Amino acid sequence: MKKTAFMATLLAFALFTSCNAQELKTIKLLAPTARRGGDLMEAFASRASIREYDTKELSLQDLSDLLWAANGLNRVEEKRFTAPTVQNKQEICLYLLDAEGAYRYDAFRNELVPVAKGDFRKVAASRQEFSATAPVTLVIVGDFSAFPPERNWTMTDAGYVSQNIYLFCAGNGMATVARGTMDKEGLHKALGLTAGQQPVLNHPVGYRK
Amino acid sequence: MKKTAFMATLLAFALFTSCNAQELKTIKLLAPTARRGGDLMEAFASRASIREYDTKELSLQDLSDLLWAANGLNRVEEKRFTAPTVQNKQEICLYLLDAEGAYRYDAFRNELVPVAKGDFRKVAASRQEFSATAPVTLVIVGDFSAFPPERNWTMTDAGYVSQNIYLFCAGNGMATVARGTMDKEGLHKALGLTAGQQPVLNHPVGYRK
Repeated sequence: MKKTAFMATLLAFALFTSCNAQELKTIKLLAPTARRGGDLMEAFASRASIREYDTKELSLQDLSDLLWAANGLNRVEEKRFTAPTVQNKQEICLYLLDAEGAYRYDAFRNELVPVAKGDFRKVAASRQEFSATAPVTLVIVGDFSAFPPERNWTMTDAGYVSQNIYLFCAGNGMATVARGTMDKEGLHKALGLTAGQQPVLNHPVGYRK
Repeated sequence: MKKTAFMATLLAFALFTSCNAQELKTIKLLAPTARRGGDLMEAFASRASIREYDTKELSLQDLSDLLWAANGLNRVEEKRFTAPTVQNKQEICLYLLDAEGAYRYDAFRNELVPVAKGDFRKVAASRQEFSATAPVTLVIVGDFSAFPPERNWTMTDAGYVSQNIYLFCAGNGMATVARGTMDKEGLHKALGLTAGQQPVLNHPVGYRK
């Protein structure tokens, strides 16, 4: 009986989230720009945590380049990414929250897959309202079941992606800050994460004011 | 009695390590090059883990730029770095191992401070001998007492520095790989780390073969 009730709840939840997400469309991203962002050493020099954002939406090319720089495929045939993972576990997923909804970044298909409708930037912002003023928030999700808890490389692998976001923004007139503060339970539910997955960091991103 | 013996051992160890390190000289680093490393997007595109190194020593300018990019001061007056730390704890230290000895990178003085004489690249290499063929190994050390163990941001902060090393190498004809494998106890002793400090990752770095 209990099992049946559980399965019914699961099914209802799956139907709910898929219907919910169906109102959003898959966003086909553009191929990453081969050259942009200026000089590498200058990007290191200007990397900083910035908490003020222009509310203007990011262009599709800027969004595409940002996601690719963060955790895109840089060696397609080898299935290797701009950010490494310890033991090549590839346990990091990147989500995007905007005014319309939540999307999962699929690096292989170079698209944003709808996950849930609604403005979840506020769920990521939690009590720090400045965060939700940026047009998008990237959420770095890690699967903590990939490593034993005593040596938690998922935390490290989230840092790799986070630094890519920082440097891309520094070189491209965008502002961001890595935040550990967020409503993690709310995001876990909204993004339909597995038991092992947890949001580690989030990055509001906007053009520099 | 026990306390006295302990203090005597401590003193002997302190004398031993300071004498030992005295045979090594402080290495004054050069100011970081303002522009180098090519295009930012191309650095993301060519970032990769590389396990083969030219044995040629790094030039002083290349070494200086590498260390500055990894975890140097990019806003001197604000005491802020190329790599962020969660809650600005600044709990990451960078060490350099070469054929002569082990050094601590002092970003404020822009110099390498001698720590111990000897070739500790092999201690970092542990059972993976390829690692010690690179002219230098950088060791990213984190202070795990900076955060509560249940949310270990020190692991994340090590990832930030590691990605800087990857990207600097990618843009400057150098090769590196982030390694979790190393003789941690051996390095802890050689580097004279505190109880809270632990080596998190190490990076053999050399010119690309």
